[in-house]
Amino acid sequence: MAMTNDDFLDELKALLGDSGVLRHPNDIARYVSDWAGDTLGTPLAVARPANTEQVAEVVKRCYEHDIAMTPQGGHSGLVAGALPDANDQELVISLERLNSVRALDPVNFTITVDAGCILENVKQAAFEHDCDFPLSLGAQGSCQIGGNIATNAGGLNVLRYGMMRELVLGLEVVLPDGRLWDGLNALHKDNRGYDLQQLFLGSEGTLGIVTGAVLKLAPRPTQSRTALLGLPSVQAVIDLYGLARRDCCDLLTAFELIPRRCIELAMEATPELRDPMDSAYPWYVLMEVAATGPVDLGSMLEQLLENGMERELVLDGALASSDTQSAQLWQFRESMLEGQRRRGEHLRTDISVPISAISDFVARASDEVMAASPECEIIAYGHVGDGNLHFNILPPASMADSDKKAHLHELENRLFDVLDDFHGSISAEHGIGRTKQAPYLAGLSPVERELVSGIKALFDPKGLMNLGRILPARE
Amino acid sequence: MAMTNDDFLDELKALLGDSGVLRHPNDIARYVSDWAGDTLGTPLAVARPANTEQVAEVVKRCYEHDIAMTPQGGHSGLVAGALPDANDQELVISLERLNSVRALDPVNFTITVDAGCILENVKQAAFEHDCDFPLSLGAQGSCQIGGNIATNAGGLNVLRYGMMRELVLGLEVVLPDGRLWDGLNALHKDNRGYDLQQLFLGSEGTLGIVTGAVLKLAPRPTQSRTALLGLPSVQAVIDLYGLARRDCCDLLTAFELIPRRCIELAMEATPELRDPMDSAYPWYVLMEVAATGPVDLGSMLEQLLENGMERELVLDGALASSDTQSAQLWQFRESMLEGQRRRGEHLRTDISVPISAISDFVARASDEVMAASPECEIIAYGHVGDGNLHFNILPPASMADSDKKAHLHELENRLFDVLDDFHGSISAEHGIGRTKQAPYLAGLSPVERELVSGIKALFDPKGLMNLGRILPARE
Repeated sequence: MAMTNDDFLDELKALLGDSGVLRHPNDIARYVSDWAGDTLGTPLAVARPANTEQVAEVVKRCYEHDIAMTPQGGHSGLVAGALPDANDQELVISLERLNSVRALDPVNFTITVDAGCILENVKQAAFEHDCDFPLSLGAQGSCQIGGNIATNAGGLNVLRYGMMRELVLGLEVVLPDGRLWDGLNALHKDNRGYDLQQLFLGSEGTLGIVTGAVLKLAPRPTQSRTALLGLPSVQAVIDLYGLARRDCCDLLTAFELIPRRCIELAMEATPELRDPMDSAYPWYVLMEVAATGPVDLGSMLEQLLENGMERELVLDGALASSDTQSAQLWQFRESMLEGQRRRGEHLRTDISVPISAISDFVARASDEVMAASPECEIIAYGHVGDGNLHFNILPPASMADSDKKAHLHELENRLFDVLDDFHGSISAEHGIGRTKQAPYLAGLSPVERELVSGIKALFDPKGLMNLGRILPARE
Repeated sequence: MAMTNDDFLDELKALLGDSGVLRHPNDIARYVSDWAGDTLGTPLAVARPANTEQVAEVVKRCYEHDIAMTPQGGHSGLVAGALPDANDQELVISLERLNSVRALDPVNFTITVDAGCILENVKQAAFEHDCDFPLSLGAQGSCQIGGNIATNAGGLNVLRYGMMRELVLGLEVVLPDGRLWDGLNALHKDNRGYDLQQLFLGSEGTLGIVTGAVLKLAPRPTQSRTALLGLPSVQAVIDLYGLARRDCCDLLTAFELIPRRCIELAMEATPELRDPMDSAYPWYVLMEVAATGPVDLGSMLEQLLENGMERELVLDGALASSDTQSAQLWQFRESMLEGQRRRGEHLRTDISVPISAISDFVARASDEVMAASPECEIIAYGHVGDGNLHFNILPPASMADSDKKAHLHELENRLFDVLDDFHGSISAEHGIGRTKQAPYLAGLSPVERELVSGIKALFDPKGLMNLGRILPARE
């Protein structure tokens, strides 16, 4: 006789304790929606294991009883990848109680953490040992390392330190049948056979639940300098990037493309912000250099500015001469996101093209979008060194709310068509989840589809682990 | 009726032309042995396709007729991974004719190459565009990019630029059934589903044949400085590394541990070399910093040297003040390898431990080895920033040649036992191939064995592609 859900959850309670299994609607409310505001359904329950062994035990029982599982981190995903399904039959497995730093080895430049550790806390722990965990994201105060791993998180400092993939040395993973895969090595170099770890990175919880990780640290910078520059065109931004890579000796930590519209949105959202320069410029670059030793970063930036002006790439610039001024410049980057949010429903994208194609892409995509919707507003900003643009679109102000979703979806399709011409990616850093599944599948070759499905079947033969994310639930 | 081998090879000749299929013993001699001097057997023939389509067609026909395949690059492997098997029934597929640079985009910092391009040529092509492809190996004059990808090559500059895995943006691969997997993207950031590319990296040609790649470039350094330092102990080397990571602002490109014995071996091999300092020191560090812009690397190294001496980590140092002097210092690193080779049969290893464990590991491993073989000679050098040691052993000079192999094998087992206690890797950068297969399999957990075998079966269901490397031929 099949076990009832109640019996199953009683079993889990016996294992995890009362507070380890949540069922009451009030208790589970915060596990059903994410940063993007999406909600799909209600879980069977929320399991809150406290350690790796408990995660393994919960998963083993789900496997035995054919219970679908949704692993969950800090709810900061943007593609509905960690939300319980609309079928109301999934068990959410939250990693939030696995939140200890297990070890920190400043000589090996590594930190070993539970997957439920919040990114900000890991960064703080590293700071205390004069080290830096350089992943840097808007969500760092709430996102968890396990989610960063599952989504191969990116962010602001990728051009210097790489994505999460490049920051992970070892992983501990509970496989969909409850067995543990122990790859928790603290080795900087390891070429023993197939690197299974790489498969878990970016697999969005569909191949197993990451419970622990060894992360690579950098020395903590002792100084940094920030500049906001005004430029005439996207092409000038790209050219300046090439110059900066050389003049700044690979000490660049951020190089952000910002359109004028974003400066205005930032000033709307944060009225204390003043226009950063005497004139307005069509494009801005917010850049930062950081170093751990005795290098004169101030002169380095000044010289770049001079070189950029000589070549007519840079029209004006504001160099922060204190941490306070630097924070003020970064405030534009934060407030512009808040300004966007206040505009209500809009299209958020996360695309990438070769760096050399950014200018042409922005021009072509803008033309296509404006031709289709002359009153919409384009807000294209991004991480230049990664070729990563958030080419976002605000719908026409006059449009009825009920029409916006379909209209934006239509514009997204046009944008993705242009992107195909540039051999770009529809997901540079946010992942596929459910939100990007349709265009992802449309772009997948038959041979890749076969391999991806084969890997999913190999790791999760019963199809219980975060099913329906990346690949559809039923092939 | 089954096709005879002659019929099959005639088919290949019709496809590739006469010079595209080699059978005469004189012609195939150079395809049956590698850098390590190993030879196992003779291939059925050597196929030399000239482009990706021909590779795909050759593989497709092998798949149809159940012909085993050995993809082959520049013959510089050290684990017998690319040698045709002793069964004399494998078709070697050499990539040597796929040797074109397909594209170079200095604005995107990428180069797109055929897999048969020789590493040195790729580096040269990058230089011509003021860029650098920073993979740096002893074998760079002959090794091919496809082999670097298949083995996830490491080398001297990993601490700054990462291993081959971190330098590859896109791949084009012919799968074992002859279908093409096209992942030849030039995107710095791409999070679309499972990253299949990562599986091919380090899979040693067992999952498919890489035919093309998009590689990440760095700006070409405009200056570099080299120093050779004398230190009292391995622990001092490790402590100095921590200091150098900070004082040198992440501009370190190499930080090599060298024992006194290696300096002597170098002077034996290259008599023009003079002892680099007035006194002899038990350990040396050969280090390099490089930059693309206006940083005073000379003062940077001097300050590090001063700080190191103050802390009694550095006893003496030679700073190169010209490119010629720098080349002289690097000559020690090259000549010491030649000096080793001249000693005849010896144990070469390629192991890694956490950086923080290097000193303890060297002490423990040396004790164990010397206890077992008091007259052997240990030569332990390596890449400190990667925790990667080539802990090599010369057998006792008095030992009969016929006894050396078994004796060194016994010492290797002892060494690997110590390594296990330190959670180290038996292969940091050379891979598994056939040579390291036994200890690799012994260290594999049942769950990992199952997943690795499953992946092999998924990609190569007929088991024809470089079979017997990493995993045994018959499971």
